[in-house]
Amino acid sequence: MASQQFEPPSGTRDFLASDLRQRERVFQAARSVFEQYGFEPLQTPAFERLETLTGKYGDEGDKLIFKILKRGVHEGSGEADMALRYDQTVPLARVVAAYGSRLPTPYKRYVIGPVWRADRPGKGRFREFTQCDIDIVGSSSPLVESELVCAGADALDAMGVKDFTILINSRKALTGLMRVYGVPADRAAGALITLDKLDKQAPPSVVAELVDTRGLERSTAENLVGDVTADDAVDRMRKELKNNPEGAEGLGEIDRLLELAGPYVGENRIRFAPNLVRGLDYYTGAIWEVVAPGMPGSIASGGRYDHLIQAMGGPDVTACGFSIGVERIIGAAGTAEDEADRIDVAVTVMNEAYLADAFGFAQDLRRAGQRAEVFLGSTRKLSKQLKWAADRRARFALLQGDSEHSDGAATIRDMQTGDQERVSVGDLVTALHQKLRM
Amino acid sequence: MASQQFEPPSGTRDFLASDLRQRERVFQAARSVFEQYGFEPLQTPAFERLETLTGKYGDEGDKLIFKILKRGVHEGSGEADMALRYDQTVPLARVVAAYGSRLPTPYKRYVIGPVWRADRPGKGRFREFTQCDIDIVGSSSPLVESELVCAGADALDAMGVKDFTILINSRKALTGLMRVYGVPADRAAGALITLDKLDKQAPPSVVAELVDTRGLERSTAENLVGDVTADDAVDRMRKELKNNPEGAEGLGEIDRLLELAGPYVGENRIRFAPNLVRGLDYYTGAIWEVVAPGMPGSIASGGRYDHLIQAMGGPDVTACGFSIGVERIIGAAGTAEDEADRIDVAVTVMNEAYLADAFGFAQDLRRAGQRAEVFLGSTRKLSKQLKWAADRRARFALLQGDSEHSDGAATIRDMQTGDQERVSVGDLVTALHQKLRM
Repeated sequence: MASQQFEPPSGTRDFLASDLRQRERVFQAARSVFEQYGFEPLQTPAFERLETLTGKYGDEGDKLIFKILKRGVHEGSGEADMALRYDQTVPLARVVAAYGSRLPTPYKRYVIGPVWRADRPGKGRFREFTQCDIDIVGSSSPLVESELVCAGADALDAMGVKDFTILINSRKALTGLMRVYGVPADRAAGALITLDKLDKQAPPSVVAELVDTRGLERSTAENLVGDVTADDAVDRMRKELKNNPEGAEGLGEIDRLLELAGPYVGENRIRFAPNLVRGLDYYTGAIWEVVAPGMPGSIASGGRYDHLIQAMGGPDVTACGFSIGVERIIGAAGTAEDEADRIDVAVTVMNEAYLADAFGFAQDLRRAGQRAEVFLGSTRKLSKQLKWAADRRARFALLQGDSEHSDGAATIRDMQTGDQERVSVGDLVTALHQKLRM
Repeated sequence: MASQQFEPPSGTRDFLASDLRQRERVFQAARSVFEQYGFEPLQTPAFERLETLTGKYGDEGDKLIFKILKRGVHEGSGEADMALRYDQTVPLARVVAAYGSRLPTPYKRYVIGPVWRADRPGKGRFREFTQCDIDIVGSSSPLVESELVCAGADALDAMGVKDFTILINSRKALTGLMRVYGVPADRAAGALITLDKLDKQAPPSVVAELVDTRGLERSTAENLVGDVTADDAVDRMRKELKNNPEGAEGLGEIDRLLELAGPYVGENRIRFAPNLVRGLDYYTGAIWEVVAPGMPGSIASGGRYDHLIQAMGGPDVTACGFSIGVERIIGAAGTAEDEADRIDVAVTVMNEAYLADAFGFAQDLRRAGQRAEVFLGSTRKLSKQLKWAADRRARFALLQGDSEHSDGAATIRDMQTGDQERVSVGDLVTALHQKLRM
C-alpha cells in the first residue's frame, strides 16, 4: 500500500494504467450504445456557483457538498462561492435553461463523469465517483421511457452485465394503490417509503412500521402487505388498480413499457414489480430499478420526473432519465488485465554504440503501428533487459549484439516460447508484423 | 448567449456535443500516439490535500489555487483542507512516491485531464482547462529526450498541427554561455530571463535591460545579444560553447537530440535555438519549445528536470517531460462539424397507431449498428418531422403512412436529394445498410 502521506485524499482514488483502461473500456461500451440511440454527450465544469447547488439536495445533501473558498482578498472571509458538482442533474437543468433552443428538441444527452460528495468513505463508497446518466428532456412521447430502458439495458449488456432484471412500476400506480387500499392521502407518501422496505425486511416488520410509524389501520396494512407480497401479487394489483383512475393510468404506463421495450430487452429481463417504490419523491410517471444476482441493491434506476428540471433551477420541461451505477459494475467486475496493457516489441540496447540503431528500430515499428518500447535503463546486460521486457509483458524482444550489428541483422525473441529468429534489419518491421498477427 | 444567471462560472465552459466530440478527437489522437510509445495513462483525483499543493508553485501560483472548505462542524472555521489540482506534475510526484516499485521502471506516463487555476479569465485563458503531459521518470538514458520529442511531434501531427518547429537548447549550454561571455555567476540567472525576451523585444531594448536591470557591463551585453541574434548565431554559439566544459556538455545534449530525433521529426522541423531560455529554473538538461506559424508564443514545451519530482514532494528521481498546449491547439482549430454529429436514420411517426412499429424500426436499425432516432414529439405532421430529421442532420428518414403500413412496407427518404424509395419492412435494415455505405 501507499505510505499514508502519499495516498490520495480519503475517499478518492488514483487510477493506474490497468484500472484506468478497464474503466475506460466500460465507459466506452456505454458511450457507443448511447451514441447509437442518438444521445449527445455533455460536459459541464467540475464546479458550479454555490447558489446553483444549494437547496437542491435537501438538508442532508447540502452538508455533503464540497465548497470552494473565495480567493484573493476574500479568502480571509472563510466564505465559499463555488462548489463541486454533486450530481449530473443540476448541471443539466442549468444547461437546458442556458442554451434552450440551441439544443435539439427533445434534448437527449448522456454524461459519464465524476461527481463529488463529502460522504463518509467506505467499502464501495467514494467521495469522487463517476455517474453515468442518460436523460431525455422536453418530450412526453410514450416512446421516451422505452427508449431509455432499451438504451440502458443495451448499455448494461455492452458493459458485460448480462444477467439482470428491470423492475417496473409507476408513481401513478402507487398513488392509485394507496387510494384503493384506503390509505389516507396525507399518509400515502410515508406509507410508500415503508412499503419500499419489503425487499430488505420481512412482511410482519413492514406491517408493524405501517401501523406504528405511518399511522395506518392494522387491517389496511395487513391487506396491503399481504397482497403486494403474494405469489400472484401482479395479478391482484392489476385487478385492484383497474378500479381507480390514477391506478389504471399508471398500469397503462407500465404495460406500454413492457409491450414496447420487452421484445428488445428480453421478456424475461423486465417485469412489473408492484412493491417497487424508489424513495425519491420527484418521480411523476413510470419508475424502474435494475437488480442483478450477487449485487445487493440496484445497479441502475430511473423514471419520469416531469418537474425536477424546474425544481433544479431550469425551465418547466418534461424529463425522464436512466442512471447506471457504473462504479458498482466496475467494482463487481474486478480488475482484468487486458491486451492493451501489453506492448508488442521491447527493443534492447546491448551496446552503447548501438543506441541510435535501437531507437531507430523502435521508431520504425511505431510508425508501422506497433506498440514498441526501447530500453531506457543504463545496464547493457541482456538478462536484465529481458526481465524488463517480461515485466512490460512484451510479446517480442529485439536483440542486436555485435555479430548481428556487423551483419546488418537483428534477432527477434518470442518472449513466451523463448524462440529466436535472426532477420535482416530491412525485414524487421514486416517480420514482426507477421508474428504479431499470428 | 446563455443568460447570465445560467452561464457556467466565470472562466469555465460547458461543452455541448460538437465541441466535446472535437476535443475528444484531438485527445484521442494524442492518446493513440502515447500508447504506441508505451506510455501509460494515469488519473489522479480532482483534489489533493492542501499541504500537497501549497508551496510548490511559488507565491503567485499559491494565490491561484482553488481551495476547498472543511466540511461539517469545521466548515465554520473558514479553513480549507483540500485543493483542486493545479497541474499534473505534483500529482505525478505523489504517485511516484506512493507506488514506487509497483510502477514500471522507468515510469512513462501520459495524462490528459483538467486542472484548475483561479487566474483572471481572458481570451484563451480559462480557470478550468486541460493539460496534456508525457513524462519519463527514473531514466537518465540519452534516448529519453529523443523519445519524448518524437512522441510529442507525432502527437502534434496526429492532432492536425503539421507546420511547427521544435526549438532546442540546453540549460547547461546556457550556463556555459554565461561563463564564456563573462557574466558573473550571481547575475547569470537574471541575465538569462532577460535574454529570453529576444523573441518579443528588439535587441537594443534587451541590451538595455541586461545593463540597467541585470547589472551586466555594456560591452558584455552587446557582445552577447549581438552574437545570439546574428544570422550565423548557431555557428558562433557552437564555436564559443566548445571552449567551456559545461557549454560543451550542453552542446552534446543538443546534438544528440538533433541526431536521434531529427530523422523522425523531420530535419526541417527541429533546430538548435541559442536564445531559447524557458523561464522556469527547474530544468537541468535539454529544453525545448514548439512554435507554429500563426500561433503566438509556444504550443508545447518541455525538457529535463532532474530534481523537480523531489521538490514537488516525491523521491529524488531523474525526470524529463513534454507538455502540449491542447487548449491552444483546439482553440486555433475552431469547431468543425463532424460526421459523428450526424445520425443515420430518423424514424418518423405518422400515425399514433404505428408508434410501436416506428420504435421497432429504430431498435432494429440500432441492433444492426446504425445510429437511429425515432421522433419523440407529439405532432404527426410529416413536414414538421422532416424538419426535425434535417435538424438532426439525418442521412435518411423513414416514413410509414397508412398505405405503406397496410402493405407491410416503409419509405426511405434520402434527406439530401429528397429521393424516396419504398421497401418491404423485412428488407429495411439491409436496404439502409447499403444506402449508408454508398
